[in-house]
Amino acid sequence: MADIEKEAALPSKKNFSDWYNELLWMGEIMDVRYPVKGLYVWYPFGFAIRRNTYAIIREILDESGHQETLFPLLIPENEFMKEAEHIKGFEDEVYWVTHGGKAQLDVPLALRPTSETAIYPMYKIWVRSHAALPLKLYQIVNTFRYETKHTRPLIRLREITSFKEAHTVHATWEEAEAQVKEAVELYTEFYKRLAVPVLRSRRPDWDKFPGADYTDAIDALMPDGRALQIGTCHHLGNNFAKTFDIKYETSSGEQVLAYQTCYGISERSLAATISIHGDDKGLVLPPEIAPVQVVIIPILFKKEAEEVLAACKDVWARLKKAGIRAEIDSSDLRPGAKYYKWEMKGVPLRLEIGPRDLKNNVAVVVRRDNGTKAQLPLPEIVEGVKAGFEAIHENLYAKAKAELESHIISCTSLTEVKKAIQKNIATIPWCEKKECGLAMEEEMDAGILGIPLDQVEDKPAKCPICGEETKTRVYVARTY
Amino acid sequence: MADIEKEAALPSKKNFSDWYNELLWMGEIMDVRYPVKGLYVWYPFGFAIRRNTYAIIREILDESGHQETLFPLLIPENEFMKEAEHIKGFEDEVYWVTHGGKAQLDVPLALRPTSETAIYPMYKIWVRSHAALPLKLYQIVNTFRYETKHTRPLIRLREITSFKEAHTVHATWEEAEAQVKEAVELYTEFYKRLAVPVLRSRRPDWDKFPGADYTDAIDALMPDGRALQIGTCHHLGNNFAKTFDIKYETSSGEQVLAYQTCYGISERSLAATISIHGDDKGLVLPPEIAPVQVVIIPILFKKEAEEVLAACKDVWARLKKAGIRAEIDSSDLRPGAKYYKWEMKGVPLRLEIGPRDLKNNVAVVVRRDNGTKAQLPLPEIVEGVKAGFEAIHENLYAKAKAELESHIISCTSLTEVKKAIQKNIATIPWCEKKECGLAMEEEMDAGILGIPLDQVEDKPAKCPICGEETKTRVYVARTY
Repeated sequence: MADIEKEAALPSKKNFSDWYNELLWMGEIMDVRYPVKGLYVWYPFGFAIRRNTYAIIREILDESGHQETLFPLLIPENEFMKEAEHIKGFEDEVYWVTHGGKAQLDVPLALRPTSETAIYPMYKIWVRSHAALPLKLYQIVNTFRYETKHTRPLIRLREITSFKEAHTVHATWEEAEAQVKEAVELYTEFYKRLAVPVLRSRRPDWDKFPGADYTDAIDALMPDGRALQIGTCHHLGNNFAKTFDIKYETSSGEQVLAYQTCYGISERSLAATISIHGDDKGLVLPPEIAPVQVVIIPILFKKEAEEVLAACKDVWARLKKAGIRAEIDSSDLRPGAKYYKWEMKGVPLRLEIGPRDLKNNVAVVVRRDNGTKAQLPLPEIVEGVKAGFEAIHENLYAKAKAELESHIISCTSLTEVKKAIQKNIATIPWCEKKECGLAMEEEMDAGILGIPLDQVEDKPAKCPICGEETKTRVYVARTY
Repeated sequence: MADIEKEAALPSKKNFSDWYNELLWMGEIMDVRYPVKGLYVWYPFGFAIRRNTYAIIREILDESGHQETLFPLLIPENEFMKEAEHIKGFEDEVYWVTHGGKAQLDVPLALRPTSETAIYPMYKIWVRSHAALPLKLYQIVNTFRYETKHTRPLIRLREITSFKEAHTVHATWEEAEAQVKEAVELYTEFYKRLAVPVLRSRRPDWDKFPGADYTDAIDALMPDGRALQIGTCHHLGNNFAKTFDIKYETSSGEQVLAYQTCYGISERSLAATISIHGDDKGLVLPPEIAPVQVVIIPILFKKEAEEVLAACKDVWARLKKAGIRAEIDSSDLRPGAKYYKWEMKGVPLRLEIGPRDLKNNVAVVVRRDNGTKAQLPLPEIVEGVKAGFEAIHENLYAKAKAELESHIISCTSLTEVKKAIQKNIATIPWCEKKECGLAMEEEMDAGILGIPLDQVEDKPAKCPICGEETKTRVYVARTY
């Protein structure tokens, strides 16, 4: 990559917003200097993290019977305008292509903000018999939103470069419901591989996906105490099936409407991973997605330089053979500068090998996540590194989980909530009536994330608006 | 996938255009029924071929020191309009986004037809010192061309869904020249992995990339005798560097203009692969890119059904463990219908296992490329299958190479050329003067592909227009 100047130090993570922006640059994730608001450039290092991350989601989806496919970006206006709720939800955010060359197009083309209206006209043709259901397809694509709010790399974009959207078709409402459950589980598993613990909840009805029966969502706790929505799973009922005439033939020969779901994940998955694990020294990457998993630093003195370098190369070759992404840094930088550089890039393990280590047939191994140093016998270096990766992953997840749990504050009054959500996610009883929910949101100046999918508490308590007793609690948070 | 009706038989490959269209459908590569001209939908099976194919190009580029990155799709009009030649080349084909929601944009945004004008404003910032050169980045993206010509899946598209474009920066013209040579070699290697032999030539000056010093190109011979351009490598000189102010500091501290190259490959790579190897029975896929590499057909009779199925599963498990993509077809179809189905999908090897085979501890193995049958001892099935893959790949390449070579016709007159190019690629002497080249093209009603990069013949002969003696020959072909 080009030589990026990194003279400035990273701001403290306590100033999260500044820290985040600088980290994306100094860690070589994204460059924000592209000359259009809300569009960003992936540095190769950032893109390598993205590749490794999306390999995980592909693996999880492929193994659970999904198939990857690809639909066009451009959606003709007439298809896009078919589903009334859906239009209302997106019409202010859609980019329109109106010209090809110098000619005006007969039909304006929408850049997909999401692909229901691109995919479902094809599902109308493809879906035939109950025997071929469920149909479970996904694609990883760029989608577009004309955001008028403040944009932010990986989080709020005009081009979402890495939208993974799945679209499934089922014979019954219940099968679609089970699919939404599966999706939530798959996403939870995905985030566990990124060492990111999640909150899972059913969004309130007024906050569901436009055109859905309901929306289950996954949120992460960001370091500033706000929630980041990092996955949504929608039960579409047969709403889109009605609009797009998606029917299948039952075993008795009847033509009936199909039921559908869709669920999505974006590069927000990376925003959460980077934000949650990073520290004042820079990125801290879970080993599975780190572009460089091990950096080997030869400690060179004139005399034994050759032997030390040879030993480093031998270790490198053995790690590579074991499928581990390792690099030797034999540049002219001082060791301290090398440490600084690779710590910024989040490399999980640093191996230092000097003449004394060589004599003892060991390497010094330093963990990025907690800074601990240990010695590893050279003959067992591969096993040692692998064990190190596991320990790092577990520690990152445990730390993040403890952090999340300590920031969920059980409240009984809206005053408590307002205070709690300055740095936390709150829970508050809710009677499940819409008017009370909206009144709470107004009063709290914050949104209800939703009703937890996982039991949090079931002592009856009182809805802070109407006073009715309820066993339901909801998550409340400031959000991105 | 949904149940696609395949009652019609595939047309003979002699009717190439019909055969191609039907094959894309019956082989489940692309669906052409998307409601916008020139935009197509990838079936999951087709997309799996695409995944395997692009894994090869990624591997080749990564190993030769390229890094993957990602730039925005949308290019602001002012950047897009900076390079005069480039605009002229693309202005009739560019899609323009003019509206976001209901608001007109201040600056119209082009959908990239190619990414020079998206990438080079960033290169202006990134390129600093000679020490960080060369810079070799690539991305795999969707690009857009408002095609007014007849569109065709994988070949002439309004959304090129799989454009692999590399963009490099160098200190000198000569280093850029060497990079173009490397690119041509890498692409040749890529196509060899697809068992596709190529013609390599330097495009005539009037047919080079808009804004380039010269263009080297790679073409394949399609079954109808036409040439398909399947890769281009451009030496950009410092033309774009001047426009976008891309400079580096030399070791003596001077600021000088950089030199650049770019080179691209698209899903035409799949069009060529499918077209060249396929036959009247359907797809014939090189093993490396086949989504299903081996299909196992249990030949079931009531008595030994259980043992046969168990043996099939055992074979499947051993193949899977060896990294081979295998499937057992234990559906209710008759064996003949199964053969038909998997032959259509181009599966390289079919294993049949019945009670008699089991007794002899063998499987019958049938090659898709030439139909030959043999017996493979079950204990050596993995090695046997791997050897089969190699033999198939070699045979496909050798056959395609012989086909290509037999269709290059050395001509001395334009009359000969006109006849030859009805079913072949012709060569003809050319004095290298532009006016003679254009006159030849006019007379032949066909384009000069270019001057071969690989020696074809060096006996002096006469330019058919001016009669001047020349050692240069050019390829002439009808093209897509």
